[in-house]
Amino acid sequence: MRVGVLTGGGDCPGLNAAIRAVVRKGVQVFGYEFVGFRAGWRGPLEGDTVALDVQAVRGILPRGGTILGSSRTNPIKVEGGVERIKDNLAGLGVDALIAIGGEDTLGVARELHGSGVNVVGVPKTIDNDLNATDYTFGFDTAVNIGMEAVDRLHTTAESHHRALICEVMGRHVGWIALHVGMAAGANVILIPERPFDIDKVIEYVESRFKTRYAPIIVVSEGAHPIDGQMELRTGERDAFGHVRLGGIGQQLADEIEKRTGKEARAAVLGHIQRGGTPTAFDRVLATRFGLQAIDAVRDGDYGKMVALKGTDIIRVGLDEATKELKAVPLERYAESEVFFG
Amino acid sequence: MRVGVLTGGGDCPGLNAAIRAVVRKGVQVFGYEFVGFRAGWRGPLEGDTVALDVQAVRGILPRGGTILGSSRTNPIKVEGGVERIKDNLAGLGVDALIAIGGEDTLGVARELHGSGVNVVGVPKTIDNDLNATDYTFGFDTAVNIGMEAVDRLHTTAESHHRALICEVMGRHVGWIALHVGMAAGANVILIPERPFDIDKVIEYVESRFKTRYAPIIVVSEGAHPIDGQMELRTGERDAFGHVRLGGIGQQLADEIEKRTGKEARAAVLGHIQRGGTPTAFDRVLATRFGLQAIDAVRDGDYGKMVALKGTDIIRVGLDEATKELKAVPLERYAESEVFFG
Amino acid sequence: MRVGVLTGGGDCPGLNAAIRAVVRKGVQVFGYEFVGFRAGWRGPLEGDTVALDVQAVRGILPRGGTILGSSRTNPIKVEGGVERIKDNLAGLGVDALIAIGGEDTLGVARELHGSGVNVVGVPKTIDNDLNATDYTFGFDTAVNIGMEAVDRLHTTAESHHRALICEVMGRHVGWIALHVGMAAGANVILIPERPFDIDKVIEYVESRFKTRYAPIIVVSEGAHPIDGQMELRTGERDAFGHVRLGGIGQQLADEIEKRTGKEARAAVLGHIQRGGTPTAFDRVLATRFGLQAIDAVRDGDYGKMVALKGTDIIRVGLDEATKELKAVPLERYAESEVFFG
Amino acid sequence: MRVGVLTGGGDCPGLNAAIRAVVRKGVQVFGYEFVGFRAGWRGPLEGDTVALDVQAVRGILPRGGTILGSSRTNPIKVEGGVERIKDNLAGLGVDALIAIGGEDTLGVARELHGSGVNVVGVPKTIDNDLNATDYTFGFDTAVNIGMEAVDRLHTTAESHHRALICEVMGRHVGWIALHVGMAAGANVILIPERPFDIDKVIEYVESRFKTRYAPIIVVSEGAHPIDGQMELRTGERDAFGHVRLGGIGQQLADEIEKRTGKEARAAVLGHIQRGGTPTAFDRVLATRFGLQAIDAVRDGDYGKMVALKGTDIIRVGLDEATKELKAVPLERYAESEVFFG
Repeated sequence: MRVGVLTGGGDCPGLNAAIRAVVRKGVQVFGYEFVGFRAGWRGPLEGDTVALDVQAVRGILPRGGTILGSSRTNPIKVEGGVERIKDNLAGLGVDALIAIGGEDTLGVARELHGSGVNVVGVPKTIDNDLNATDYTFGFDTAVNIGMEAVDRLHTTAESHHRALICEVMGRHVGWIALHVGMAAGANVILIPERPFDIDKVIEYVESRFKTRYAPIIVVSEGAHPIDGQMELRTGERDAFGHVRLGGIGQQLADEIEKRTGKEARAAVLGHIQRGGTPTAFDRVLATRFGLQAIDAVRDGDYGKMVALKGTDIIRVGLDEATKELKAVPLERYAESEVFFG
Repeated sequence: MRVGVLTGGGDCPGLNAAIRAVVRKGVQVFGYEFVGFRAGWRGPLEGDTVALDVQAVRGILPRGGTILGSSRTNPIKVEGGVERIKDNLAGLGVDALIAIGGEDTLGVARELHGSGVNVVGVPKTIDNDLNATDYTFGFDTAVNIGMEAVDRLHTTAESHHRALICEVMGRHVGWIALHVGMAAGANVILIPERPFDIDKVIEYVESRFKTRYAPIIVVSEGAHPIDGQMELRTGERDAFGHVRLGGIGQQLADEIEKRTGKEARAAVLGHIQRGGTPTAFDRVLATRFGLQAIDAVRDGDYGKMVALKGTDIIRVGLDEATKELKAVPLERYAESEVFFG
Repeated sequence: MRVGVLTGGGDCPGLNAAIRAVVRKGVQVFGYEFVGFRAGWRGPLEGDTVALDVQAVRGILPRGGTILGSSRTNPIKVEGGVERIKDNLAGLGVDALIAIGGEDTLGVARELHGSGVNVVGVPKTIDNDLNATDYTFGFDTAVNIGMEAVDRLHTTAESHHRALICEVMGRHVGWIALHVGMAAGANVILIPERPFDIDKVIEYVESRFKTRYAPIIVVSEGAHPIDGQMELRTGERDAFGHVRLGGIGQQLADEIEKRTGKEARAAVLGHIQRGGTPTAFDRVLATRFGLQAIDAVRDGDYGKMVALKGTDIIRVGLDEATKELKAVPLERYAESEVFFG
Repeated sequence: MRVGVLTGGGDCPGLNAAIRAVVRKGVQVFGYEFVGFRAGWRGPLEGDTVALDVQAVRGILPRGGTILGSSRTNPIKVEGGVERIKDNLAGLGVDALIAIGGEDTLGVARELHGSGVNVVGVPKTIDNDLNATDYTFGFDTAVNIGMEAVDRLHTTAESHHRALICEVMGRHVGWIALHVGMAAGANVILIPERPFDIDKVIEYVESRFKTRYAPIIVVSEGAHPIDGQMELRTGERDAFGHVRLGGIGQQLADEIEKRTGKEARAAVLGHIQRGGTPTAFDRVLATRFGLQAIDAVRDGDYGKMVALKGTDIIRVGLDEATKELKAVPLERYAESEVFFG
């Protein structure tokens, strides 16, 4: 049995832990061989491989990033892409493929499975926005990094009278902002799921300034005000069409200064949240995902994605897994509002 | 409505986060008053109270320990203890009591509820050994501290040829050792649930020494060899009848040196794992437990303990909650054995 | 003997450690009394005091911020300010004043000493830009925070092909950027002392992209290109006339994208670097500064600032201490250039 | 020019940073070739080499341990050892040797230099006990790890009434204990340089128990009571003649329990302090040491060791460097006594 492994999409702490678990159990328990594909779907598309054995995965457990590299290449959108992948897999003698990635990567996995490729998916999204699993690895690490940053802002906010804004990742969903804000005691949390009322934000800020503490706001990069409330700077998309990191945090700081006459400062964590060594939670989750994925291969249980339900690792259909985004429910957001102001 | 709050048993990161959530929601949303009881059950037993309002809980979210103090006082074992507590609660006008603690504390809570006291329990055990909840706060912090320690041992083990042992908390269950060992890539994990075969341990150690890496063993303080295999030093209990922290780790180091002729060193984390700032996971869990506990009071839903199931905070009967210890299932332990040697 | 203590200027980890040392030794060894002044020079100017005894400094050693609060109030610029301070000190029976702060705070201390006030200075600047001392506390903490952030960026840079920029503090001097960049292995470091050549920066970036790694740039907030090389966005000053945090990092990212056609992302650490618990280096340094400051008071050795020379804590004249900014010498910067590209 | 590099003695965070700096500057600026020797002096003794070029040192800056491995092999004690080294160096065409290590390693370097080998030394001792340099890398990391551990003990000590002991490294000198204790606010610090009075220690412990806080003691592994005061357990040496890690901490805990009737617990950090990623201070120091060492080679300035004086990296004679141990001066210890009890 020869198994291919690839990692697609954005960086995420825990990818190496998952790869290591797949290979260690595959080789030592099942006696499989492995083929590493480089740079996400570009690997099988172009037949770009790398040796993947027990030696290759030694010492990678605590390391961020992925030894396989990643990319956002989508073979579905490439003329004849699916056929080329099937040909390359056949040529390399690859019997099954483990695809570790987010919504896009798993969507491709689903399509390939539909075309007869033996695929097992492992979910990965720092944003925690996949519906079929309680958590994905990388999220806990991102939240802890954000929390430590906001912990540090707190002492400055206490000593001075300055509003401090921390912009965290989350273009479409606010899970990171919600957890960072709850864990670190933010005075306001702003998430994409609920357009914010800038008047209400200013009110919280003003009331906080009346105590001896200064306000701290945690904001998702994808959060935005109720339509028409704030004049947003345009040109905040970069040359690649992505929303600019750092946009909303700084604009919020400007607005607060203008309206309150108090200084406001923004910190933008950006990619700091996606890199570096994973937390214990993410390492254990990624390891257990990897073990379950190679078990699925052994069972011939293809077209599935591994997932966390409570404390169990289960398998769900790739169809179900990629159906819809898991947004923050408004009642979860409401829990955090108790601590606002 | 006047609500009493106490924290009992051993120290645990997240206690302050739970207290803060109870008080913030109780005061700001429900308009309740609070009475803090000092030092666990000794507080209501002796009527020893401390002011507990929004000001008192400011800034405590990131802090380890408990602003209320703790103790292992068991009022059930005190002559007339239950009656004294009921009298003191009545005298102080306390309508309901939130007891935050482990098995012992919650056992007392169950008894008191049986005697007509309005009690809600919040589970707390660093060992993660309560059956009715997926996780308890404090556990994730303890695991991360252990993981960081073992991460550091790895580089020394790589540079030298020395067996390194890390003894972690866990007198009766091995959850901390299992998660630390999986997260940090231990070569052997030893837990109380399964007496270890010292010959097998030596075999792993010897085979590891043959690579350029040296072996790292994570061992629960409560782990022990198969009966008769090792001559254990006696006198490892202290004046208080507790098993001595540091016992098994050092004895294992001695045995490895004797049998392999290679140096072995033990690090003993001890109380380092129970103190200090909680991780994001523990802060969010403790906060959500606190919010749910005060909701239970508002609902008059007494005799319950709050618990985590998947991503939901639910309530379970105190009876059910304290029934039996949650040990590490052998199939979970077997998962980790893939990485041994 | 009654001694006043104040902290002025920006936040800086270690302020509390210094206050604690002053008070502990002053009370326990010399039997002095203390008066805490609130909010920097505003405290003695307005007679705004706070109790400062052994109980008040308990537990503050590991905490960021300052229990005394701070401000940028300059009494020299206030009509009759110096006289008001002298009157208030006399009225409160304060015999000597310990002023903990940066260039501005110590400049006021020097003036007051000239007017006959018994002042001892303790240097504090996160930027490490005071000439009379090898290091100031807060700097080591800021550098470690920056280093950890860049460590995290490295793994993302390795997995993807994206230029990553980390903007750190340092409006006038580049010490933080230099040390963060050297400690974390930046591919380019840009500091205010040496206007950068954007063509050279692009060259480094391009050459790095040719390896399998992506470039990481550490840039001081006050760094700027050689005149005329880049069209800098205006309006980067806020309502208070301060240069906007986040300005140069984002502009550099834009320029790199435009010129190389590769994605670039900026993280802006901002105030995260000034808050939170100090490192061991900063806690020991601040403690030793505090001990030396109260020794100077005991010796009646006023008009002095405590300073670090090698491993010794010495005293220098406040005159000398505030004479000129300690910039990064170009030969120190050149050391780091070995690692560029 | 072909330069050999080796690392000897115990593990120490920063070794890789020093190796990287030597190689990067040597190759990129001076055009040298390098030969890595494996496992300390065993490498040149047995001609055991490893490739050492720019590729080999990529990514090692943040990593603990040493890519070259280490050992305690002393070629002086090996029959004909010096001659064999000279022959091997000649055979490999090695013109100069950079030896990174502690007292033993540098002592060998001095002897070899006396025999005509071109040697430059780089000091490395986690214990900070070399007289000729203000600091050595590894020390700051060890102190920070110890400080974080004691920070965590503090919250437990506050919540309960239990004496907590933290045993840190330092067989002959107490620098680590002194700095950990000052940085983390220990109530007692015990170092090898001054035999402790157990009656005085018990007095501090008792007086601390009278407050609402519990005592925390930081003790060097090499600290010991005044002769005859405590009956020390024998057999605390291991099979290799080393003093057992964990000895004095646990014995102190036993003594405190016996004398005070209060519980006491010991944590033993052991090797955790020598491993893992270095702090910024250690990375910058190790890097600057490496740069200076290769400059010394370029200058043909052999028989020297690089050293830190204030903020400068200088060169001193290997003779001077290895003359005597740098113990903690009693006046530095006295500084810390202000905070005892």
